Amino acid sequence: MTSRYRVRILIACPDRPGIIAALSDGLFRLGGNIVTADQHSEDPDQGMFFMRLEVEFPSTVRDQEVSRSLRHLGEQFGMMLRISRSDAPRRMAVFVSREDHCIKELAWQCESGEIGASIAVVISNHRDLEAWAQSAHLPYHHIPVTAATKSQAEAKAQSLLTNIDLVVLARYMQILSPAFVEAWAGHMINIHHSFLPAFIGPNPYRQAFDRGVKLIGATAHYVTADLDQGPIIEQDVQRVDHRQRVPDLKRLGRHVERMVLTRAVRWHLEDRVLVYQNRTVVFP
Amino acid sequence: MTSRYRVRILIACPDRPGIIAALSDGLFRLGGNIVTADQHSEDPDQGMFFMRLEVEFPSTVRDQEVSRSLRHLGEQFGMMLRISRSDAPRRMAVFVSREDHCIKELAWQCESGEIGASIAVVISNHRDLEAWAQSAHLPYHHIPVTAATKSQAEAKAQSLLTNIDLVVLARYMQILSPAFVEAWAGHMINIHHSFLPAFIGPNPYRQAFDRGVKLIGATAHYVTADLDQGPIIEQDVQRVDHRQRVPDLKRLGRHVERMVLTRAVRWHLEDRVLVYQNRTVVFP
Amino acid sequence: MTSRYRVRILIACPDRPGIIAALSDGLFRLGGNIVTADQHSEDPDQGMFFMRLEVEFPSTVRDQEVSRSLRHLGEQFGMMLRISRSDAPRRMAVFVSREDHCIKELAWQCESGEIGASIAVVISNHRDLEAWAQSAHLPYHHIPVTAATKSQAEAKAQSLLTNIDLVVLARYMQILSPAFVEAWAGHMINIHHSFLPAFIGPNPYRQAFDRGVKLIGATAHYVTADLDQGPIIEQDVQRVDHRQRVPDLKRLGRHVERMVLTRAVRWHLEDRVLVYQNRTVVFP
Amino acid sequence: MTSRYRVRILIACPDRPGIIAALSDGLFRLGGNIVTADQHSEDPDQGMFFMRLEVEFPSTVRDQEVSRSLRHLGEQFGMMLRISRSDAPRRMAVFVSREDHCIKELAWQCESGEIGASIAVVISNHRDLEAWAQSAHLPYHHIPVTAATKSQAEAKAQSLLTNIDLVVLARYMQILSPAFVEAWAGHMINIHHSFLPAFIGPNPYRQAFDRGVKLIGATAHYVTADLDQGPIIEQDVQRVDHRQRVPDLKRLGRHVERMVLTRAVRWHLEDRVLVYQNRTVVFP
Repeated sequence: MTSRYRVRILIACPDRPGIIAALSDGLFRLGGNIVTADQHSEDPDQGMFFMRLEVEFPSTVRDQEVSRSLRHLGEQFGMMLRISRSDAPRRMAVFVSREDHCIKELAWQCESGEIGASIAVVISNHRDLEAWAQSAHLPYHHIPVTAATKSQAEAKAQSLLTNIDLVVLARYMQILSPAFVEAWAGHMINIHHSFLPAFIGPNPYRQAFDRGVKLIGATAHYVTADLDQGPIIEQDVQRVDHRQRVPDLKRLGRHVERMVLTRAVRWHLEDRVLVYQNRTVVFP
Repeated sequence: MTSRYRVRILIACPDRPGIIAALSDGLFRLGGNIVTADQHSEDPDQGMFFMRLEVEFPSTVRDQEVSRSLRHLGEQFGMMLRISRSDAPRRMAVFVSREDHCIKELAWQCESGEIGASIAVVISNHRDLEAWAQSAHLPYHHIPVTAATKSQAEAKAQSLLTNIDLVVLARYMQILSPAFVEAWAGHMINIHHSFLPAFIGPNPYRQAFDRGVKLIGATAHYVTADLDQGPIIEQDVQRVDHRQRVPDLKRLGRHVERMVLTRAVRWHLEDRVLVYQNRTVVFP
Repeated sequence: MTSRYRVRILIACPDRPGIIAALSDGLFRLGGNIVTADQHSEDPDQGMFFMRLEVEFPSTVRDQEVSRSLRHLGEQFGMMLRISRSDAPRRMAVFVSREDHCIKELAWQCESGEIGASIAVVISNHRDLEAWAQSAHLPYHHIPVTAATKSQAEAKAQSLLTNIDLVVLARYMQILSPAFVEAWAGHMINIHHSFLPAFIGPNPYRQAFDRGVKLIGATAHYVTADLDQGPIIEQDVQRVDHRQRVPDLKRLGRHVERMVLTRAVRWHLEDRVLVYQNRTVVFP
Repeated sequence: MTSRYRVRILIACPDRPGIIAALSDGLFRLGGNIVTADQHSEDPDQGMFFMRLEVEFPSTVRDQEVSRSLRHLGEQFGMMLRISRSDAPRRMAVFVSREDHCIKELAWQCESGEIGASIAVVISNHRDLEAWAQSAHLPYHHIPVTAATKSQAEAKAQSLLTNIDLVVLARYMQILSPAFVEAWAGHMINIHHSFLPAFIGPNPYRQAFDRGVKLIGATAHYVTADLDQGPIIEQDVQRVDHRQRVPDLKRLGRHVERMVLTRAVRWHLEDRVLVYQNRTVVFP
């Protein structure tokens, strides 16, 4: 059996007839076999065309050749295009504060192979998770943040983010500067501990308790300059009842938070998420 | 076998030792057998005590006697007390506009016995559901509402609400006056077509689409003067994806709306819901 | 704007490179625009290729022409192929016994347009739902069934099934003969009131209660000669607790049954379901 | 403020009037305050009475005194009675084979305080988890099992189970002897990787795939001599689709398994679970 590799392709462009024909013809000529394809058009007249493909190529076909051909096609159709080998290593930087559940679930799923990536850097404004990170052999950097030192702290953090594919704010609890956010646009995911847009801002479990909701939730989203306003990747909820008070909601919420965040991170790293007009297209 | 009847008791009072002892002793002396009891205290030091009981009495014990004894006890402990026979007929008034799914589900569940009540009056500001109501033998009243006629319209509606236990706003889409709301405080349930407090106000599905949420929801709550701010009785959600546009969300949401509303109505009519500090205690 | 129509295409065939290229090229030459496509291959070496497409054509292109071209292509690739216009009317026959919740939900969703079909015939071995069917203007046929008259009864039922796209057993409770089942293979859906393969056979709620499960379920499946063994289209569950006894499970189960059945029926009628090796591929 | 402790009481007995009156009177005389109570009767005429209470006592009241009084009362009413201080330390023994996800989730929740217990012993027939157990400071015992050495292996395991409150089979994959099972009746919980009673026995995910189910599940149950037949404590499910093959089901199932097992363990350790006629009463 010839050895093969797999390429993932994400496409967004204005819809018009013939896109799939041109694309699949091109891939076929390159020797590729489409293993999975998922496409939809918003509105055939004037809407957007969104597509995700996984294509297998024999290892005799060079991936640069594949990329070049696709980019050529992409120009014809005005495509926003993302192309990546599925076997490329992915490296995450994880920002944490004091809460450990989100990063531990991420570390666990990376270790078990459920998330095909590694945690290359852990950055925290506190020392609480330092011992754990060391025992898990994760490079840990303590970068305290105060109002006065914020820009220096961000510069130091930024200097550690070399060859990083994704920045994860795993309950980091600090607001990053617009410049830092901009630098990682589309490559930085935050977990917010509420069902957004409900309970934006601090203490969402306290807000949820005060409002008396019957479900609490968590939201993973790309980080943008507007706090808690970025494109939502995944959300989920957990039923609660009247006997549960704020500490109970926090405890129950931890489960939802880690599940929602890890799903979002996995989908992003598997090239399943496209952003268009502040909403995400998530290919299942 | 002696014939028996069942009494439901809802209690809220400041907690202190001895409440259950006094209560269960009183019920035992009256000849009652506690069939189900659910109680919890918020904080034994200074919190509230909440309890729901169902008690069976032989028909030789008069229910007025039971009520009198319980009210006597209630005074000692400063209880908010609701007492009702489970076999008492319950009558609902349902306000609708043009959408039919919520009232149809209510009518269906009343007919099948899942909700132990009848729809005694249907009031609408439109004629869309008149034919259906007539075919279902439900007394239908068309009361148009304009800014100019609002108070008259409400007066007319109010005049139809005799011997009504619960008013249900089943997608009524009209804002009622504070006086009307006040008159039915704790006895009027609304269904809002979003997961409150997200998407308060008009067009919540449009708001949900624009924000790109991954779950849509519905919320049943008691109506208070503050729009969409009343105590929440029940909520639920439904997963959506990027291909679904506003009309799809509306269609999917109809299922959640009717399920959430009918559950809330059933719980209220089974005396399972207590309001305390704008939050509900729902005894399962 | 030119008027257009939409064609749905379901494909299953052995995988090999070039299928999508040939298909999309063919559709493009016919003047079609692929509006949505969903494809996956089980195993690129020797597995099966499954695909669903929706394609828009200008009304100047004749649908017979589309079908002929596609069938020609289908022969080349050994395709199992289903082609249908999305605007073709769909007619269901619904078999019921005494329980009304499944057929009522079906009728409701047909009426509201959620299911794009009509109920053309209702067949029952009892008279319980006759009055309701008449009030809903559904042609109702009472065909009693006994061991002695079974084959006659089936013959009579069969004679009523003209121009029927789908037979739905909406809690029919009778076992149909292998010949009848065979005649409607792939076009007859049953709702079983358990989470199959748990609780096959009669009284599944009693079985569920006795086993003490914490979730009850329902399963919609294509009917095959083996009772409750046909390909599963959809399943769902509902949480129950220790206080709920058999009648409560039945009541709660009714909700799950009607939701699961209507989803399965809708998916089938929207050409979203493919059967392969006694399992279904359901395109979302 | 006087220091206090909390006692949990589980009761099952034949129903009759006056049980709660006698019980609450007794607790009141002892100086206790009922913090939460949950009770129901199956059938007031001849059914069973089930109740769970949490009662606070000032530390001046000796817990032996409480127990003695309650046991005295229990004799009068024929009660099955469990009494425990909520602050008593709980020790688990966890049996594992090669899969790590269940024990890791247990260890994590013990560490974070979500489960109020400690893992006192880890026993495995393999060495795969030895290094992890050591790094987590959990006493690990490798006890290989073959058909020939099974009784010795069990004897050795049994000798390690001193002061153990609960034995957890966290994907142990070995069938224990009836004698061993009997010795831990009501105190040994297993996680089965299917929605029981579907897919009893080995390879449930393979069975689930072959049957084409749309939901996979996990079941936590008390272990009895009949394999996979013990009283169910908790179950949950996870939606799957046609693209997921056996390894995907295993991966997805791991999440459900660890959530279901940890919930069951927590409920057991919080004295929320009663067994009656092979079904469990779980007080929420």
